[in-house]
Amino acid sequence: MSTQHTVIEHVEMSGHILDSLLLPKVLDAILSRGAEYKIDHFDVGRKQTDPSHVRIEIQAPTPAILEAILADIHAHGAVPNHVADCTTVPADRAGAFPDGFYCSTNFRTEVHCGGEWLSVADQEMDCGIVIDFNARTARCLPMTEVQIGDAVVVGRTGIRVFPNERDTPHKGDLFEFMSSPVSSERPKAVSVREVAQAIRRTRAAGENVIAVLGPAVVHTGGGEFVAQMIRDGHINILFAGNALATHDIEQSFYGTSLGVNLQHGLPCDEGHEHHLRTINTIRRLGGIRAAVEAGRLQSGIMYECVRANIPFVLCGSIRDDGPLPDVITDILKAQTAMRHYIPGSGFCLMVATTLHSIAVGNLLPASVRVACVDINPATVTKLMDRGSTQTVGIVSDAEPFLAGLVAELARSE
Amino acid sequence: MSTQHTVIEHVEMSGHILDSLLLPKVLDAILSRGAEYKIDHFDVGRKQTDPSHVRIEIQAPTPAILEAILADIHAHGAVPNHVADCTTVPADRAGAFPDGFYCSTNFRTEVHCGGEWLSVADQEMDCGIVIDFNARTARCLPMTEVQIGDAVVVGRTGIRVFPNERDTPHKGDLFEFMSSPVSSERPKAVSVREVAQAIRRTRAAGENVIAVLGPAVVHTGGGEFVAQMIRDGHINILFAGNALATHDIEQSFYGTSLGVNLQHGLPCDEGHEHHLRTINTIRRLGGIRAAVEAGRLQSGIMYECVRANIPFVLCGSIRDDGPLPDVITDILKAQTAMRHYIPGSGFCLMVATTLHSIAVGNLLPASVRVACVDINPATVTKLMDRGSTQTVGIVSDAEPFLAGLVAELARSE
Amino acid sequence: MSTQHTVIEHVEMSGHILDSLLLPKVLDAILSRGAEYKIDHFDVGRKQTDPSHVRIEIQAPTPAILEAILADIHAHGAVPNHVADCTTVPADRAGAFPDGFYCSTNFRTEVHCGGEWLSVADQEMDCGIVIDFNARTARCLPMTEVQIGDAVVVGRTGIRVFPNERDTPHKGDLFEFMSSPVSSERPKAVSVREVAQAIRRTRAAGENVIAVLGPAVVHTGGGEFVAQMIRDGHINILFAGNALATHDIEQSFYGTSLGVNLQHGLPCDEGHEHHLRTINTIRRLGGIRAAVEAGRLQSGIMYECVRANIPFVLCGSIRDDGPLPDVITDILKAQTAMRHYIPGSGFCLMVATTLHSIAVGNLLPASVRVACVDINPATVTKLMDRGSTQTVGIVSDAEPFLAGLVAELARSE
Amino acid sequence: MSTQHTVIEHVEMSGHILDSLLLPKVLDAILSRGAEYKIDHFDVGRKQTDPSHVRIEIQAPTPAILEAILADIHAHGAVPNHVADCTTVPADRAGAFPDGFYCSTNFRTEVHCGGEWLSVADQEMDCGIVIDFNARTARCLPMTEVQIGDAVVVGRTGIRVFPNERDTPHKGDLFEFMSSPVSSERPKAVSVREVAQAIRRTRAAGENVIAVLGPAVVHTGGGEFVAQMIRDGHINILFAGNALATHDIEQSFYGTSLGVNLQHGLPCDEGHEHHLRTINTIRRLGGIRAAVEAGRLQSGIMYECVRANIPFVLCGSIRDDGPLPDVITDILKAQTAMRHYIPGSGFCLMVATTLHSIAVGNLLPASVRVACVDINPATVTKLMDRGSTQTVGIVSDAEPFLAGLVAELARSE
Repeated sequence: MSTQHTVIEHVEMSGHILDSLLLPKVLDAILSRGAEYKIDHFDVGRKQTDPSHVRIEIQAPTPAILEAILADIHAHGAVPNHVADCTTVPADRAGAFPDGFYCSTNFRTEVHCGGEWLSVADQEMDCGIVIDFNARTARCLPMTEVQIGDAVVVGRTGIRVFPNERDTPHKGDLFEFMSSPVSSERPKAVSVREVAQAIRRTRAAGENVIAVLGPAVVHTGGGEFVAQMIRDGHINILFAGNALATHDIEQSFYGTSLGVNLQHGLPCDEGHEHHLRTINTIRRLGGIRAAVEAGRLQSGIMYECVRANIPFVLCGSIRDDGPLPDVITDILKAQTAMRHYIPGSGFCLMVATTLHSIAVGNLLPASVRVACVDINPATVTKLMDRGSTQTVGIVSDAEPFLAGLVAELARSE
Repeated sequence: MSTQHTVIEHVEMSGHILDSLLLPKVLDAILSRGAEYKIDHFDVGRKQTDPSHVRIEIQAPTPAILEAILADIHAHGAVPNHVADCTTVPADRAGAFPDGFYCSTNFRTEVHCGGEWLSVADQEMDCGIVIDFNARTARCLPMTEVQIGDAVVVGRTGIRVFPNERDTPHKGDLFEFMSSPVSSERPKAVSVREVAQAIRRTRAAGENVIAVLGPAVVHTGGGEFVAQMIRDGHINILFAGNALATHDIEQSFYGTSLGVNLQHGLPCDEGHEHHLRTINTIRRLGGIRAAVEAGRLQSGIMYECVRANIPFVLCGSIRDDGPLPDVITDILKAQTAMRHYIPGSGFCLMVATTLHSIAVGNLLPASVRVACVDINPATVTKLMDRGSTQTVGIVSDAEPFLAGLVAELARSE
Repeated sequence: MSTQHTVIEHVEMSGHILDSLLLPKVLDAILSRGAEYKIDHFDVGRKQTDPSHVRIEIQAPTPAILEAILADIHAHGAVPNHVADCTTVPADRAGAFPDGFYCSTNFRTEVHCGGEWLSVADQEMDCGIVIDFNARTARCLPMTEVQIGDAVVVGRTGIRVFPNERDTPHKGDLFEFMSSPVSSERPKAVSVREVAQAIRRTRAAGENVIAVLGPAVVHTGGGEFVAQMIRDGHINILFAGNALATHDIEQSFYGTSLGVNLQHGLPCDEGHEHHLRTINTIRRLGGIRAAVEAGRLQSGIMYECVRANIPFVLCGSIRDDGPLPDVITDILKAQTAMRHYIPGSGFCLMVATTLHSIAVGNLLPASVRVACVDINPATVTKLMDRGSTQTVGIVSDAEPFLAGLVAELARSE
Repeated sequence: MSTQHTVIEHVEMSGHILDSLLLPKVLDAILSRGAEYKIDHFDVGRKQTDPSHVRIEIQAPTPAILEAILADIHAHGAVPNHVADCTTVPADRAGAFPDGFYCSTNFRTEVHCGGEWLSVADQEMDCGIVIDFNARTARCLPMTEVQIGDAVVVGRTGIRVFPNERDTPHKGDLFEFMSSPVSSERPKAVSVREVAQAIRRTRAAGENVIAVLGPAVVHTGGGEFVAQMIRDGHINILFAGNALATHDIEQSFYGTSLGVNLQHGLPCDEGHEHHLRTINTIRRLGGIRAAVEAGRLQSGIMYECVRANIPFVLCGSIRDDGPLPDVITDILKAQTAMRHYIPGSGFCLMVATTLHSIAVGNLLPASVRVACVDINPATVTKLMDRGSTQTVGIVSDAEPFLAGLVAELARSE
C-alpha cells in the first residue's frame, strides 16, 4: 500500500496497560485491520504500581478503516490525543436514537462537555448517552426510553472509557485468586471460599448482593440453602423467572408429593400438574405476598423474600406456563424493574440459568462483580464471552455448590 | 399391607398398547406407586394391525395413592371402565381456574358430556378445558384467558385421551426411519432426507410448515438457505425472537462489514454496535415491513417473509437489546399470537434455539410432528424430555444442515 | 409382499416381559425389520409377581430378515421354541474365532449341551463362548485368547440369555428409587443416599466395590474423600489410569506448591513440570509400592491402596506422559488384569472418566450394578447407551459428590 | 515485605513481545507469585515489524519463589541476562531422568554448550534434553527411552526457547483469519475455506498433512470424504484407533446391512456383532493390508491408505474390542510409531476424537499447525488449553465439515 494514501491518527492510553493486556489488544486490533502502528512515546511504569503511558500513531489505509480501528480500541481506553467536546443531536422521534449515536459500554465513562469531563450515570452497555446541559449531567439511556428532544451523544469525540479499573479500594479485590478461565476441573473448595468472601466483602462495604437463580436450584434440592442465605442477609435482591418461583412454591405446597419426589428423585407424571396447580392457586390468592400473608405459603425462597422484605423481580419468558401473577410479562417493563435495583449492588451471584444470567449481565455496570455457577460449561462461557472482564465462571452443580457456600458463610461469621 | 385397606379401581386401555409401550408404562406406574395390579382381561391383537384391549384391576393402599396412579396413567390412555359425564365448575374469577381443574395434555382428547363424547378443540398441554353447553363444544383454554362463569372441567371423570395415534393416513408416517434417540453420531444424510420428506409430505397434505429459528442460523451462515426455503414455499410460518431477526437484518444492512466478518469469521468489536444500529434503524423506519417497502431492507430471511407474505411472530425475551418494533414484548400476547397460526400446521422445524423451541413445543398439539436441530445435545434432549413423542432430535450444525436440506429439497422436486 | 415367500419362526419368552418392556421391544424389533407377528399364546401374569409367558409367530419376508430379527431379539430373551444343542466349531487359528461365532452379551447365559443347560462362566459382552466337553463347562473368551482347537459356539441355536433379572435377593434392589434417566436437575441428596446404600448392601453381601476414577477426582479436590473411603473399606478395588495416580501422588509430593494451587485454584506453568517430575521420581524409586515402603509417598489415594492392600490396575493410554512404572502399557494385558478382579464384585462406582468407564463397562457382567458420576451428561449417556440396564447415571461434580458420599456413609454406619 | 530479604534477578526478552502478549504474561506471572518487577530498559519497536527488547528486574521475596517465577516465564522466552553453558548430569538409570532434569516445551529451543547455541532436535513437550558432546548435537528424549550415561540437561541455565515464532515464511500464515476463540456460532464456510487453504499451502511447501480421526467420522457418514482426500493426496499420514478402522472396514464389509443403517440411521442390535465379526475377519486374514491384497477389503479409508501407501498408525486403547491385528496394543510403542512420522509434517487435521487428538497434540512441535474439529466444544477447548497456540478449534459436525472440505479442495485445485 502506498503511503500517500495513508490516514493517520494519534491515540493515547494510560494506566496498567501492560499487565492488563490493554495495550497488546490495541496493537492487535490495529494490525488485524490491516493498518500499521508506530510507538511515538512509551513511558513504562518501572514498578507495577506505576501507571504507564503510551502514545501510538495509527497508519490506516483508508478513513473507513481508521474509523473502524478507533471504534475497536475505544473500549480498551485508547482515545485520540486531542480533546474536544462531545457532539449531541436532539432526538427526532421517541423510542429511537438519531443515526450515528454513540453506543455505550459497561465501563465507567466520561463525556467532555463545556470544557469539563462529566461522569456518565446509570452506566450500561448498548445504550445511548443523553446530556442534560442545564444540570450538567450525562446518563445512559435505553433506546426505547428516548423522548423527542433528548440530547443524544453521537460519534466518539470527547468520550473516554476506563476499562482497566480494578475493584474499589474499600472492598479490595473481590476475587483474589480466581480469574476467568472456565474449567470443571478446578478445586471446588476454592471457588466456594472465594464466593463466600465476595459476599462478605460486598456486605461489609454496604453494598447489595443480587442473586439470579434458575429452576435447577430447586430441582437439585438447593432451595433450602438459598432460603438460609436470605435469612442470613447474604442475598439482598432476587432476579428470577416464573419457573424458579413456581418450583419453589410447589415444593412448599405439595410437601408430601414433593417428599416422595425427594425420596425417589424421579419426575412423576402428575408433577407437571402440581406445577400448574401451584400457579393457579397463587393466581387465586392474588400473588405471592398475599399467599404468605394468608398463611398459605410458609416456606421456601419466595416466602423468605417476602418475610425479609427482599425485593424480587420475576421476569416473564415466552416458555412460561401460567404465569404467577407476580411475573412481569412485558420484558421491557421487567428490564426496567431490574434496572431499578442495580444501583447500590456490588456483587451478583448467578446460578443455573442461561437466560436470566445473560439478561442481567446486559444490565450490570462492569463495576459489579459476577460469579456465574452452572453445571454446563457453555452457559458460563457464553456469559463471559459477552465482553465482560467482571465475571468469574464456576462449572459446578447447583445444590452442592450452594450447600458448600452456606457452610462456608457460617464458618466465616 | 393388609388387604382390607386396599382401594380398588378397574381401568381399560385399547389400541396398540403393546408395541407403543403404553401398557408397560401403565403397569410400571402402578408398581412404582407401591400399588399392585391384576390383569382381568387381555385381548391381544394377534397381528400388529389388530388393536389390543386390556382391563386392569388396580389395588392401591390408600385412596390418595389410587388417585395419584389414575392421574399418572390417564395420559397413557387408561380410563376407568365406567363412563360418566365430565364435571364442570363455573370459574369464580378471571385468569384462574377453579381448584381441581383438569390439566390438559397435548394428545387428542374427548370429554363425555350429555351422554356423548365431544372432541376438544385447540388441544394444548397445560391448559384447562371449558365447555359450551349450548353449542355442545369443548376447547382448551390457557389459565390467563379464563372468564368468570366459564364452565371449567374438573377431575378426570368422563375424559379420555388418545396418546398412541400415529400420523394421519393422508400424510403417512412423516418420519419413516428416524425415531427418538438423540445422537451426534448418526449418518447425517439420512436426517436431512427425512426432514425434506416431512416438509414435502406436509405441503402435499395442504398443511403448513412452521420454522422456529435461533440466531445461530444466521451466525453460522445459514440465513441464505432459510431465505431460499421461504422463496420455494417450504416454510410457511416463522416463529423467532429479536436476535434472529436483528442478525438477519444486520447481515443485509452492513454488507461490507459483514463481508469482512464472513471473510475472517471473527466477531469485531463494532459488530455489537451494528446490532444496535440495525435495531435503531428499523425503529426509525417504523418496522420490518416498512423497511422493506421503503426499499431499505432488500435481502434475508425477514425480507423474504415480507415479500412472500409469510406470517412471522417475533417473541420478546428478557435478554433482548432494543428490540425491533415488530417484537411482541408481552409474552402472553406473544403466546397468543403464535397460537393463532398453529391450526393448519403439520410440521415444525426448530433450528438452533432452546428458548423458542420449548416455547413452541408447549403450544403444539401432539399431531404436529417436530424436528429439532441443534449442535448441543442438551437442547435436543430437553425438548424431547417434555413428554413429547412427536419430536425427532438431530444433533448437527445449523448452516451445514440447512445447506444440505436445501440441496435435498431441490433434488426431490 | 406375497405370503408364499414368508418365512416363519416361533419364539417364546417368559418372565416379567411386560413391565420390563422386553415384550414390546421384541414386537418393535419385528415390525421395524418389515416383518409381522402373530401372538400365538399369551399367558399374562395376573399379578405382578406372576411371570408371563408368550409365544410369538414371526412372519419375515426373507430368511435373511428372519435371521436378523432373531439376532435382534435374542438379547431380549426371546428364543425359538424348539430346543437343540448348541453348535461348536474347533478354532482353526489362535487369536480369532471361526466364522459365524456366537457373540456374547453381558447377561447371564446358558448353552444347551448334551441335553442339559450349562451356565456360562466369566460372562462378558463381545466375547465368544467356548465349551469344555469333558468338564461339561462353558465360558466366555475374548477373541485374542482363542487357542487352536477351542470348541467355539457358532450360531444362536441352543443358547438362552436372561436379560430381565433383577438384583440378587440377598442384596435387594441396589437402587430402589433411582432409575436410568440422566438429568443434571435431579435432587442430588437422593443420588448420594442411593450410592451409599448400594455400597453398604454390596459390602454386607460379602461382595467387592470397584472404583473407576478419572483425574478430575483429584483436580476438583476430591482425593481425600476417596482416601477416606479406602480406609473405611468402602472401596475394595481401584481401576484407573496414569493421570489419576500421578495427580494423586503429585498432590502428596508437592505439598507446598500444591498448597498454592489449592489456594488460588489456578494451573501454574510449572504444574505440568511437577506432573512429570512426579512420574520420574516414582520411576527412580521403582514403583508406587516401593515409594510407600521407602517412606517417600505418605498420603493420598495410591498410598491408601498400598497400605490397605487394595488391588489397583493402572491402564495405559495413548495420551499418557511417562508413565508411572505401575501402569500396564499393553492394553490387552491391562484388560486381562482388570478381568482378574471382577469376579466377586457387586458394585462399581465410576467417577469423572469416560475412557476408563467405558473400558470397565465392557468387561462387567450385567449383574454388577454401576453408578456413573460425571459433570458431563454426554459421558453418562454414552455409558448407558452401551446396552446396559445395569447403570445409574448421575450428572454431578466429582468433589462435592464424593464429599457428600463420605458424609452419608459416616452417617449410616 | 522487607527489602533486605528480597532476591533479585534480571531477565531479558526480545521479539514481538507486545502484540504476542508474551511480555504481559511475564509481568502477570511475576505479580501473581507475590513478587515485584521493575522495567530496567524497554526498547519498543516503533513499527510492528521491529522487534522490541526489554530487561526486567524481578524482586522476589524468597529464592524459592524466584525459582518458581523463572520456571513460569522461561516458556515465554524470558531468560536471565547472563549466558552460561547448560548443565548436564549423566543418567544413573535407564527409563528415568536424573532429578532436576529440564522439562521441555514444544517450542523451538536452543541449549548453550561449549560457548555456542545448539538447536534441539525432535522438539516435543514433556521430554528431557540429552546432549551428544562429540557430535555437538542436542535432542528431546522421552523419559522411557533414557539410557544409563545419557547426558541429560538439568536446570534452566543456558537454555532458551522461542515461543513467539509465526509460521514459516515459505508457507505464509496457515490460518490468515481464524484465530483461537472456540464457538459453534461462527460462519462455517470460513472455517472450511481456511482448512482447505492450510492443506494446500502445506502440500505446496512439500510438507505432509496428518489426519487424526475418531469413529464419528464414519458414523456420521464422512468416511467417503476422507477416502477422497486420501486419493487426492490431501492426507499423507493417518493416526487413529481401533474404532475408526473397524467401523470403516465394517461399512465396507456389511454393505447391505450398512445400507439399511444408512437408510434408517438407527443402530440395530446386531450392529455391534458386525463390529466384532469385522475384527475377527481381519484377524483371520492377517491384517488390513492382507485383506486388501486378498481382495476382501475393497473400499473405505483403510483401503485407500493401503492403496496409496499412506502410513497409518492405529493406537490401542483400553476400551478396544478385539482389536484389529494392525493395532499397536502397547501405548509406548504406539507413541514411538507416531513420533516416527511427525518430522516433515506441517499441518494436522483432527476430527471427532478427544483421546487421539490430545495424544497427538502431546507429540507435535509447536511449528506444526493444528485444526481440531469436533461437535463437542469441550473437546476443542481441552486441546487448546494444553498450552498450544498452534491450534485452531472448529465446533462443527464431522460429516458436513468433511463434505464441505472436499468440495472446497476440489474448487480450489
